[in-house]
Amino acid sequence: MENNYSSVLLHNVVENFTRLPGIGQKTALRLALHLLKQPPEMAAALGESVIKLRSEIQYCKVCNNISDRETCDICSNPKRDHSTLCIVEDIRDMLAIENTGQFKGVYHVLGGIISPVEGIGPSDLSIAPVIDKAGSGDFKEIIMALPATVEGDTTNFYLFKMLQKFGLNISVIARGIPVGDELDYTDEITLGRSILMRQPYQGNKG
Amino acid sequence: MENNYSSVLLHNVVENFTRLPGIGQKTALRLALHLLKQPPEMAAALGESVIKLRSEIQYCKVCNNISDRETCDICSNPKRDHSTLCIVEDIRDMLAIENTGQFKGVYHVLGGIISPVEGIGPSDLSIAPVIDKAGSGDFKEIIMALPATVEGDTTNFYLFKMLQKFGLNISVIARGIPVGDELDYTDEITLGRSILMRQPYQGNKG
Repeated sequence: MENNYSSVLLHNVVENFTRLPGIGQKTALRLALHLLKQPPEMAAALGESVIKLRSEIQYCKVCNNISDRETCDICSNPKRDHSTLCIVEDIRDMLAIENTGQFKGVYHVLGGIISPVEGIGPSDLSIAPVIDKAGSGDFKEIIMALPATVEGDTTNFYLFKMLQKFGLNISVIARGIPVGDELDYTDEITLGRSILMRQPYQGNKG
Repeated sequence: MENNYSSVLLHNVVENFTRLPGIGQKTALRLALHLLKQPPEMAAALGESVIKLRSEIQYCKVCNNISDRETCDICSNPKRDHSTLCIVEDIRDMLAIENTGQFKGVYHVLGGIISPVEGIGPSDLSIAPVIDKAGSGDFKEIIMALPATVEGDTTNFYLFKMLQKFGLNISVIARGIPVGDELDYTDEITLGRSILMRQPYQGNKG
């Protein structure tokens, strides 16, 4: 459907919005018309922040996380445990783990996971620095916190092969029944795996 | 939930995206991270088009539609029927009608509908130009193509009260069972109304 938006300015905004994931023609037009009803400062703030993000963003030298400086807040924080490394796919997973408040170590952001379907191989990811870190003697444990998918499993296996020679503790985050879920609503693979991976009962830690 | 995005640049983009309707924290972060993976030109194009839209947009002097010029493409098109006026809420409804290909007249964009709940009264809408147009003698028919909601009905009634003295044909778009729908899936109000508003059978137009 080719729409005549009666305005090239409007057309351009709609076109650019539809290039974002999950935004179609109708949503894009709704967003553009919403912007028109707001104070001009709001559209200016949105536009400028988008331009600045892409042109000025940096990646932390140490962990590859998005940062405004050479070294991110977590890597430069002396209160974090710099001997435990948690490997994540991207900043979203890092934020999710940070929100749990259960991890005080440092991260390494791969920037993706191995996915033959999408043509992403090990060389497209930030894996070499992980191997350097593992060989540096600074770390005691490496936790692989990647998605519980085939791609995540592939990446876990690849990382394990590359890292096992360093004699560090290498772990993966636990998979099993989500807390609060009923057994009969859990899919068979997760339930089967949670039986195979059963753990010693530890009282209230369950 | 207050997230530490480790980057003020990222934080600003996420904040600005969440001010748009239907976009929450997670979607905003996904959009921002998507932009980071695209060529810088794409983010620049999006940002600049948003800034330009709000600062350079004009509204057609004649119909109040969004336009890049003083008079929009439809109002300045001599092939349109300039004696039939279709009143719509906003440009989206105008585009929807244009896409049907069933209307060759001209439009007037109210810029909203009367909604006491949202504090929108007749004075907030572009109604005065409609009355001027009705009194100008240039128009034979005025079609009210407003939403089939309580607010749309209220606005229809208000417009009718203001326009009836001019002796023009005033019509509203038909309401009834959507084409292709089953009767037993149609809500009772629509079905009841479609019986009350039944029309003479006209063969294949039926």
